[in-house]
Amino acid sequence: MPAYDDDNIFARILRGEIPCFKVYEDDRTFAFLDIMPRSKGHMLVIPKVKATGLTDIGADDLSYLMGVVQKLAPKLTDALGADGFMIQQFNGEAAGQTVFHLHFHIIPRWADVPLKPHGRTMEDKDVLAATAETVKAAFAA
Amino acid sequence: MPAYDDDNIFARILRGEIPCFKVYEDDRTFAFLDIMPRSKGHMLVIPKVKATGLTDIGADDLSYLMGVVQKLAPKLTDALGADGFMIQQFNGEAAGQTVFHLHFHIIPRWADVPLKPHGRTMEDKDVLAATAETVKAAFAA
Repeated sequence: MPAYDDDNIFARILRGEIPCFKVYEDDRTFAFLDIMPRSKGHMLVIPKVKATGLTDIGADDLSYLMGVVQKLAPKLTDALGADGFMIQQFNGEAAGQTVFHLHFHIIPRWADVPLKPHGRTMEDKDVLAATAETVKAAFAA
Repeated sequence: MPAYDDDNIFARILRGEIPCFKVYEDDRTFAFLDIMPRSKGHMLVIPKVKATGLTDIGADDLSYLMGVVQKLAPKLTDALGADGFMIQQFNGEAAGQTVFHLHFHIIPRWADVPLKPHGRTMEDKDVLAATAETVKAAFAA
């Protein structure tokens, strides 16, 4: 794995330097919609600590992060009326990792809707904004 | 999610009722090769507690399980000379879950080797046995 780069796109999102469709934030984690979603509501949960992937985050930070994933995933699924959800996490370019700040994908699934390819098609901004509002409201409830 | 079924295939593997290519075990977790691997060394890490998916495992058991995933994944990757690894975890039939005992997939990735489809082709038993020996030795080292 490469060394942590302070200018990776998620570090810049965390610093508020570039916009995102934020759906959740607490002291230690941050979550936002993937702008090239594999399904409606595809979101990313990231730690605020600097970690490039699964191997270089501390045990306590990883536990906290997984607790947030565990809390948000069923709320996301329910809010969008999905039938289930997938968790994905990539380590290394060969595994499909494109941003070297650790992130867990939560991908809602519907029985009759195939996944779109990974990181291929940019979603319409109005669609993302509307989904973000629905999801944010469900997380805040 | 369905209620936990004591006769699901992973419960039976945990009870030793059916064989598997085991690569790791401790008091709280168990790991074995997927017999329909998406890449060489594709393995599953499961908790010994009864949980159908991510939403019905306790926080402490999930933390412990993720610690094991975090410990084993880089060892697996190194042992097989892979370039990276993916983590996947499915919740619900619509998300591709076929066994309703919580399991995390660790899937080694090589830059020039595409993934095989999920749960499609049974690997040769001798190939699985040889891979299991290599991986088990790396985990025990």
